[in-house]
Amino acid sequence: MPYFDTASSAPLHPVARQALHASLDEGWADPARLYREGRRARLLLDAARESAAEAVGCRPDELVFTPSGTSAVHSGMSGALFGRRRVGSHAVVSAVEHSSVLHAARAHGDATGGEVTEVPVDRYGAVSPGTYAGALRDDTALACLQSANHEVGTEQPVAAVAEACRSRGVPLLVDAAQSLGWAPVDGAWSLLTASAHKWGGPAGVGLLAVRKGVRFARRGPADERESGRVPGFENIPAIVAAVASLRAVRAQAADEDVRLRVLVDRIRARVPELVPDVEVVGDPVRRLPHLVTFSCLYVDGESLLHELDRADFSVNSGSSCTSSTLTPSHVLRAMGVLSEGNVRVSLPLGTPDAEVDRFLEVLPGAVSGVRARLGAPVSAPLAGSGRPAPGAGAPGDPSGGPVSGGRSGDALPGTAPSLVVDALGRRCPIPVIELAKVFGEVPVGGTVAVLSDDEAARLDIPAWCEMRGQEYVGEEPADHGVAYVVRRVS
Amino acid sequence: MPYFDTASSAPLHPVARQALHASLDEGWADPARLYREGRRARLLLDAARESAAEAVGCRPDELVFTPSGTSAVHSGMSGALFGRRRVGSHAVVSAVEHSSVLHAARAHGDATGGEVTEVPVDRYGAVSPGTYAGALRDDTALACLQSANHEVGTEQPVAAVAEACRSRGVPLLVDAAQSLGWAPVDGAWSLLTASAHKWGGPAGVGLLAVRKGVRFARRGPADERESGRVPGFENIPAIVAAVASLRAVRAQAADEDVRLRVLVDRIRARVPELVPDVEVVGDPVRRLPHLVTFSCLYVDGESLLHELDRADFSVNSGSSCTSSTLTPSHVLRAMGVLSEGNVRVSLPLGTPDAEVDRFLEVLPGAVSGVRARLGAPVSAPLAGSGRPAPGAGAPGDPSGGPVSGGRSGDALPGTAPSLVVDALGRRCPIPVIELAKVFGEVPVGGTVAVLSDDEAARLDIPAWCEMRGQEYVGEEPADHGVAYVVRRVS
Repeated sequence: MPYFDTASSAPLHPVARQALHASLDEGWADPARLYREGRRARLLLDAARESAAEAVGCRPDELVFTPSGTSAVHSGMSGALFGRRRVGSHAVVSAVEHSSVLHAARAHGDATGGEVTEVPVDRYGAVSPGTYAGALRDDTALACLQSANHEVGTEQPVAAVAEACRSRGVPLLVDAAQSLGWAPVDGAWSLLTASAHKWGGPAGVGLLAVRKGVRFARRGPADERESGRVPGFENIPAIVAAVASLRAVRAQAADEDVRLRVLVDRIRARVPELVPDVEVVGDPVRRLPHLVTFSCLYVDGESLLHELDRADFSVNSGSSCTSSTLTPSHVLRAMGVLSEGNVRVSLPLGTPDAEVDRFLEVLPGAVSGVRARLGAPVSAPLAGSGRPAPGAGAPGDPSGGPVSGGRSGDALPGTAPSLVVDALGRRCPIPVIELAKVFGEVPVGGTVAVLSDDEAARLDIPAWCEMRGQEYVGEEPADHGVAYVVRRVS
Repeated sequence: MPYFDTASSAPLHPVARQALHASLDEGWADPARLYREGRRARLLLDAARESAAEAVGCRPDELVFTPSGTSAVHSGMSGALFGRRRVGSHAVVSAVEHSSVLHAARAHGDATGGEVTEVPVDRYGAVSPGTYAGALRDDTALACLQSANHEVGTEQPVAAVAEACRSRGVPLLVDAAQSLGWAPVDGAWSLLTASAHKWGGPAGVGLLAVRKGVRFARRGPADERESGRVPGFENIPAIVAAVASLRAVRAQAADEDVRLRVLVDRIRARVPELVPDVEVVGDPVRRLPHLVTFSCLYVDGESLLHELDRADFSVNSGSSCTSSTLTPSHVLRAMGVLSEGNVRVSLPLGTPDAEVDRFLEVLPGAVSGVRARLGAPVSAPLAGSGRPAPGAGAPGDPSGGPVSGGRSGDALPGTAPSLVVDALGRRCPIPVIELAKVFGEVPVGGTVAVLSDDEAARLDIPAWCEMRGQEYVGEEPADHGVAYVVRRVS
């Protein structure tokens, strides 16, 4: 049962398990107490802090343990923003941060009226240091940047952004949740957060490092634990296990980086050869060693995940149909890439080559099965970006919606006669499938307007155009939804 | 090595350990994911929630897991206060709540300008339902009351207070941290909080129950986990272990309640017989089964804890010298009882009789050792409350401070000639020791004024008067401190 979603949560590392068992006997007492059980717990906590600080690259008194990575982000951002409230209330984040960062930034904005600038990313998902630097202002209280993206694996230019922040006197918080198991974060960061269950530690442990000299003022009720920064009884056995696991994965990191990088490159190269109409996303080189993401046209992510689960592969998806809000992943949206049929593969340490090969055997059938059930157009494999598609619908469409084709006037002023496809009430990937099915019917120069009320269409119809080499004209309001207009150029 | 501080943290229950081990393999994945590892984790979480809700006496969808008891209190109070912000911002708490409740109330007051009413307690540490009800106002957003006190074990009249709150339409939050392992909380409470490591569960798990119909609005960054009430990745193995442990201790509760109650009664009866000048505090009947607290005149708590630790007994203290702020426990202060030489004994389930007997053997020597080193007055054992004391200083006082005795004018207008004892710069228990040493030198009707800048003196000098049957006249400002005036009446 290959588990390929270590970016969500990694199974407990054997070293973490050992450390947890051992410290359950020694680390359950209150480390603030004066008696021997308390002193023993305190020794374990102090040793874990020293060891974690060494792995992070900070001083032990700069590091506290939190109940989760999310809690580390919330505490770190709120403490830094409140600490610099006299400077201003402006915050800068990248558009592809983890939701915990974006939600904390919005909560800060709502509470203080402070503005939040989201720095855009390129099609690989990376910010440009110049653009990031340009977003810094005199009233910027805090800047945030992840070390590497959790959905597509792209590394961010943290050192360059940290330097830009340093020169403007703005503290930079780095969310290192996805990368800390691989290496420390380079550069002059001011705050750093991470989450132990991402590197094989137990749940319930996050890290927050705040460099000396960074203004920090905790909000909320006072509490003496963890330097006054993290209220609540310390979870020492889990902390000990988390730190033991961090050291263990770091010891494996150099070898596994090389090995998993090869496996991910294999997936990146083979998936477009094996599966037609696929977009592999994220930076092919400047990326996490173990993570790769691709999206499959005419596929709904949830069905594909179930197909892969039935074939014993556990992966994740940023497709709208796998989200409780029915919106595509904000990361894919910010990158402007296809979100339908999205699959994220993140390999655990020690993943055997054979499991990846087996995944590549299973994937094409899983995708084509979902497509067949949806009545999707059939393409030949190795359909590359910008390559013209056949555009013909598959015969017999059991799930097809009402398609009201026909020349119905100009979609946008001055365009050629067009088709209108009514996909209102239909969810991803149906609007794109309906577009593809009728696209062959319009002449070159003509347009198709897809009426849709599905959020994913706003991302996936332009992405389809990009993949197909067709022109995305734009969107305009329509009754009960939006008309997305595409012009045939080839 | 008898560990008698289960009210701080209990060792991991064997059942919790088993459940933790088992669920480390099944519960590490993200329960929000669709693949089998995620579904398995979700099943474990759902089952744990059902079981916890049954033990609490609420519906499963009313209960969420938090990273700690403190976090449950903070989230519960903040959500309830914010949810009722249109009603008002007044909060009511008892004066003897856990610091997490008092700190959250103060943080709320600081942030909103809302007033906080602290309901006083009697000498046993209990609120009166009538007084509590009188503190409720039309703009009261939230009332908080512990089920039983964490320092002295006294049970609060929760059901009566809950009824008063219900009739005023005010939600009542019950902090059940100390009692939930023994029994569910009776009465029409609205919110309930608890902490698993108090009942032998692992650290890292708290409970928050919010009854349907209670207005609740989480503050802070949005997060989908735990009904949107608790951000961060769920710690499922620890949650499973916590709930397994709760069920296990509940199964033992009826038997252990009877057994430990007898052992605590033995301590309550024997300590004043074995150790002179002791005050046993807290309600002798309406109390937790396993907890007893007493204070020893002329003893500093930290030294006594070290003596007991050397004799292999781990206990806690609410004395000022064991606190980082050098102030006595707010609970002892609110009760108006002696804080010096304070010892809290809280027996774990299964404590053998022999350990308690051994504690009673060891305690008198530990106390007299500390007293001898401090040059404290020597009394005969069984010195009861209100009994006149010898009042004579022990010969030879290696640690005694500068005592400026002498008839120096009236301490308060109209009083008889008096002695002045200068204990400035000396910490608890020295000011009380100095008072006792000179007290025999003043005639009946005369006064002693103790100059002190130690916070504990404000509590301990009146408590000494109460124990000795002497009159505490009052305090008045003095250079560099306060003059505490005592009149000899016998």
